[in-house]
Amino acid sequence: MLPRGRPRAMGAAVLLLLLLVVGFFLFGRDPECKRRSWAGEEGTLCDRCLLTPRVFSDGLGTTATLDEDPYGSRNLSASSPQLLLPPKCEMLHVAIVCAGYNSSREIITLTKSLLFYRKNPLHLHLITDAIARNILETLFRTWMVPALVVSFYDAEELKPLVSWIPNKHYSGLYGLMKLVLPSILPPSLAQVIVLDTDVTFSSDIVELWALFGRFSDKQVVGLVENQSDWYLGNLWKNHRPWPALGRGFNTGVILLWLDRLQQTGWEQMWKVTAKRELLTLMATSLADQDIFNAVIKEHPHLVHPLPCVWNVQLSDHTLAERCYLEAADLKVIHWNSPKKLRVKNKHAEFFRNLHLTFLGYDGKLLRRELFGCPNQFPPGAEQLQQALAQLDEEEPCFEFRQQQLTVHRVHITFLPHQPPPPRPHDVTLVAQLSMDRLQMLEALCRHWPGPMSLALYLTDEEAQQFLHFVETSPVLSVRKDVAYHVVYQDGPLYPVNQLRNVALAQALTPYVFLSDIDFLPAYSLYDYLRASIEQLELDSRRKTALVVPAFETLHYRFSFPNSKAELLTLLDAGSLHTFRYHEWPQGHSSTDYSRWREAQAPYRVQWSADYEPYVVVPRDCPRYDPRFVGFGWNKVAHIIELDAQEYEFLVLPEAFSIHLPHTPSLDISRFRSSPTYRNCLQALKEEFHQDLSRRYGSAALKYLTALQQARSRA
Amino acid sequence: MLPRGRPRAMGAAVLLLLLLVVGFFLFGRDPECKRRSWAGEEGTLCDRCLLTPRVFSDGLGTTATLDEDPYGSRNLSASSPQLLLPPKCEMLHVAIVCAGYNSSREIITLTKSLLFYRKNPLHLHLITDAIARNILETLFRTWMVPALVVSFYDAEELKPLVSWIPNKHYSGLYGLMKLVLPSILPPSLAQVIVLDTDVTFSSDIVELWALFGRFSDKQVVGLVENQSDWYLGNLWKNHRPWPALGRGFNTGVILLWLDRLQQTGWEQMWKVTAKRELLTLMATSLADQDIFNAVIKEHPHLVHPLPCVWNVQLSDHTLAERCYLEAADLKVIHWNSPKKLRVKNKHAEFFRNLHLTFLGYDGKLLRRELFGCPNQFPPGAEQLQQALAQLDEEEPCFEFRQQQLTVHRVHITFLPHQPPPPRPHDVTLVAQLSMDRLQMLEALCRHWPGPMSLALYLTDEEAQQFLHFVETSPVLSVRKDVAYHVVYQDGPLYPVNQLRNVALAQALTPYVFLSDIDFLPAYSLYDYLRASIEQLELDSRRKTALVVPAFETLHYRFSFPNSKAELLTLLDAGSLHTFRYHEWPQGHSSTDYSRWREAQAPYRVQWSADYEPYVVVPRDCPRYDPRFVGFGWNKVAHIIELDAQEYEFLVLPEAFSIHLPHTPSLDISRFRSSPTYRNCLQALKEEFHQDLSRRYGSAALKYLTALQQARSRA
Repeated sequence: MLPRGRPRAMGAAVLLLLLLVVGFFLFGRDPECKRRSWAGEEGTLCDRCLLTPRVFSDGLGTTATLDEDPYGSRNLSASSPQLLLPPKCEMLHVAIVCAGYNSSREIITLTKSLLFYRKNPLHLHLITDAIARNILETLFRTWMVPALVVSFYDAEELKPLVSWIPNKHYSGLYGLMKLVLPSILPPSLAQVIVLDTDVTFSSDIVELWALFGRFSDKQVVGLVENQSDWYLGNLWKNHRPWPALGRGFNTGVILLWLDRLQQTGWEQMWKVTAKRELLTLMATSLADQDIFNAVIKEHPHLVHPLPCVWNVQLSDHTLAERCYLEAADLKVIHWNSPKKLRVKNKHAEFFRNLHLTFLGYDGKLLRRELFGCPNQFPPGAEQLQQALAQLDEEEPCFEFRQQQLTVHRVHITFLPHQPPPPRPHDVTLVAQLSMDRLQMLEALCRHWPGPMSLALYLTDEEAQQFLHFVETSPVLSVRKDVAYHVVYQDGPLYPVNQLRNVALAQALTPYVFLSDIDFLPAYSLYDYLRASIEQLELDSRRKTALVVPAFETLHYRFSFPNSKAELLTLLDAGSLHTFRYHEWPQGHSSTDYSRWREAQAPYRVQWSADYEPYVVVPRDCPRYDPRFVGFGWNKVAHIIELDAQEYEFLVLPEAFSIHLPHTPSLDISRFRSSPTYRNCLQALKEEFHQDLSRRYGSAALKYLTALQQARSRA
Repeated sequence: MLPRGRPRAMGAAVLLLLLLVVGFFLFGRDPECKRRSWAGEEGTLCDRCLLTPRVFSDGLGTTATLDEDPYGSRNLSASSPQLLLPPKCEMLHVAIVCAGYNSSREIITLTKSLLFYRKNPLHLHLITDAIARNILETLFRTWMVPALVVSFYDAEELKPLVSWIPNKHYSGLYGLMKLVLPSILPPSLAQVIVLDTDVTFSSDIVELWALFGRFSDKQVVGLVENQSDWYLGNLWKNHRPWPALGRGFNTGVILLWLDRLQQTGWEQMWKVTAKRELLTLMATSLADQDIFNAVIKEHPHLVHPLPCVWNVQLSDHTLAERCYLEAADLKVIHWNSPKKLRVKNKHAEFFRNLHLTFLGYDGKLLRRELFGCPNQFPPGAEQLQQALAQLDEEEPCFEFRQQQLTVHRVHITFLPHQPPPPRPHDVTLVAQLSMDRLQMLEALCRHWPGPMSLALYLTDEEAQQFLHFVETSPVLSVRKDVAYHVVYQDGPLYPVNQLRNVALAQALTPYVFLSDIDFLPAYSLYDYLRASIEQLELDSRRKTALVVPAFETLHYRFSFPNSKAELLTLLDAGSLHTFRYHEWPQGHSSTDYSRWREAQAPYRVQWSADYEPYVVVPRDCPRYDPRFVGFGWNKVAHIIELDAQEYEFLVLPEAFSIHLPHTPSLDISRFRSSPTYRNCLQALKEEFHQDLSRRYGSAALKYLTALQQARSRA
């Protein structure tokens, strides 16, 4: 209970207590710990100085507060008197090694938790392989977080520095790279916090940074003690861990005092130790951690032990409970079991919830500025903010304008992906979807055995559901040639053409089939397209668009035709129709279905108003016009662009794809029910035509004429 | 920058500094403030003690830290030396007045922000009207948050205590109730934090609670200064605010020292002041806040001014910027403009993001226990946890078992609702849906002019999108007779029958039409059903189920028949079909469509295997069996239950409803593609039959026989 009666007297008592505590911290604790453990008695460091709940009471007698809170996490750690936080605008530096698809997802969740609690500018130093760099460069560029700087370092270049160390840990060579950070980070950088990708913050990193202030003159590395018995040895027969002080230290969270490390000859030091140990130990089991521990065992004065709350380690057989059960304040959770979130632990649910908080957290909400700190805006952010601020909220098409300007976070290749081998006639299916079309993916995979590039418009939470969906689908989980690009939701209108452009930009084959998610291609289409591209020698005449005729069924369950002949039979029986024959015949009339029935060879067709066929084009074709958001005219504008650039439309006689029925989208419902929505679409069309005239001059006249004719008919 | 060289010397310096600061806080600051302002010089309190950025440097000379951080928010406030946090398991008390639908939504967002940062057990004391109580009792019961106690107090009973005060503020009588909290909260409660529903926490409330420790002996109320010029007067001609010290105080966040208030005769004190002021001022403009300020003006020793970060007030013309621009740490945001989130403020985006964080935060993640605190589980939570822990993760139907046990948070009447007037033959349409069926709602409203009770299965984020959807729909926003109940998503299988039961339990008319969201009733159905109920004198023979025959169309756009005759024409033309005639004829065969064609009067039909008609039944009909989650057999089981309880099935000759096409749900797709899914459904059916036999004995034999026959056919 809080003392209620006499605040001043209480204040004085507290002051006295604080003096004792401060004194203890400054003059009592570290030497005590060092005396007991640095002398080499294994096990004493952890038992007495970090994991034993009684350490603070030793020097102080029994006081309620200290007894109940031995880890210095509540009234003592971050808020403890001797800990002065750096000024609010001081940049904090964080280094992380990250390689591959899965770690790239992990690091984003870690970053969200960092950003959520941080109040200082952050500089992330990311040591990445080509895959992670590709993903993360796009992500951070589109994320546009104020007061966040990201630098990339090529992990390939570091490989030779550590590849001589045999390593059995699943992290491979990347796991060892933390050892060489002092040599590769900029010399201007005096201090850095190094993190594993599998940690989650639940507090402000500035409190961790401030612990540099507790280092003694000689200390260069801040670490939390290991919360498992691994380094004690004898876990099984012939279990022989690397040398360590007691339980050793965990390297998931490291405070590196870089300039001091340089001065102490770190590079030589760890190499000498590693080489000597490798003579008998053959390989590292826990990568860098083994070597850090061996060095510390030899030079114990180098390490500054950190409170355990800064690296709560959640393995199956963790001793972490001894840390957190007493602490009200957990600072960093470390999912350092290979089982990750599925780790068995009686409080696993608690930790999972903390992690899920950031997994599902809407990253755009972290585009928060830091009040009163200068120069915090990433490239383009200020201009964007100004453009958005200039929009008139009362204007009827405000929502459209705002949606057009929105920069969505983009996470390319969200899942592991095997890029297709280079083949001159290969075709990637390009499409976009949101959560309500997920059930199309399995069927699509059965119909299209080739590469796909799909953009998904999802919330952060849905992205996790999507991940689960793919991982548990026997059909999808084996298809490594399908690249999924997550575009994060922001705003009420579906940014259909922005999505298409993301998927198109990530297609890696020379040709792309620009499709929609609710169409299933003929089973033979992938092979047929590649054969046609080869036969038609498209590579020598690049400006060709191959048209794939579109049909539709109104039945959810129907047997998909195995050939053109079967398709024609269904068409004649009325079970199939040409696409949108009743609602929007002009969309596909140029395809000339009656000619297609009889055609044996590709035939050329001319553009006509509102034509929007599904086409196969070279990958470098024009992009979709991102001004078209929501429902309507998004493909039509793209086909006009192709025509204006003098693409030739060739209909393929054996190609077809069939539209399956689905619930009308919210956007189409709004289009139908709202005159404003239709007026705004009309305004977009007109602006598009103005741009077209500007770019193509009189050649664009025919599109304008067509629009005017269409309008006079309406 | 952090000092790097000599940590001990630095530590000693910091210690010295702290001593000065502590001394200043304990012995310097409060008297200084009091001398200057309590003497009655208006404006000096705020200028010198709260809003002026130089106050701390007065006593200390210029030090970087203190100069830069005048609000004591970073190194000094929560973490400041004299502020001792209460023990981690100490219960903190919070009182909130809450009335109506919209405030009930607000308070949930506030509670999420509280729970997110809190590390202590919390006791919420909610003073509610009947509407809020109904909503919040259900919500907190189903939320099952550990270490959270909720008590309700009837606002009706408080009305007479404040209704004599004329009040012009939009909060009405409820706005005044904070004045009487000291008389109605339990006498055992010594201290309480009082909050408005429109505040958002961005820090741990324990830090606010700890400020009680800074109260002097005489102080009884902790408040943050007002961040507008309202109480300075002269904002416009004849603007005459209530008396206040300088800018006065804002009552959105109050620390009430209850037992001291009692001792000081608070009740008499505020009444005397209010009555006196009302002689000249006629009415309060800002409800309780005017009276609090008038009392404080008269008895300035009662107030303990709180740092401004604990109530950052976001009105259009707020002075809050002077508070937060200097502070890195905002603690509580107060949306105290009637415009709420649409407030104009150059940092509005920042504050909105903070608020949106909790608006969309998945509340189930707050079911986190507090480590090391005893007795924190709400009723049923421990048993539930045990039952879940006993499930075998490797069992093939694990997902089904887990989903059945899941307790979903339920927010009944999410939007303002006008209960239907009591009418003996009235019927409520009952259905459930998820986000992907939202576009059905407008059409449904056009077809059914009567009351509806709809359960929506949503994430927290989707609930906000849903709110926006209804508010911007001209059709939906005017329909106050539609009650929307949000059931929050948790788990991979759609809990269809749990949803139906929520909607059914909230229906307020004597009869319910148990429908599905993808059906549109005949335009006349609502009137026809009420007439039929009256004519058939159903109230005298309660066990009747009126059958509404079901049809389907495969076209998204079709003209809905205006009569049975028109429907029959469409049926004959093949544009309509009897429901699932091709896929699942047994579902509706008992309805006997050919008899219905000719029928002029209601006719009785017998149950047969797999019968699942849409029926109208008394509100107290049996509930749906919640074991059926995902796709399959959920309605069939309910109809069996009706039959087993000897309900009579009467088909209505003029009633019909038509199913519109939609994309197959993920659940039906999984049912079709996964043998495990089908096996689990089969297991559920068998368990259902076993229960049936247990309850109805030999009378249930016919259902089992039917099941076995069906299986032998399969």
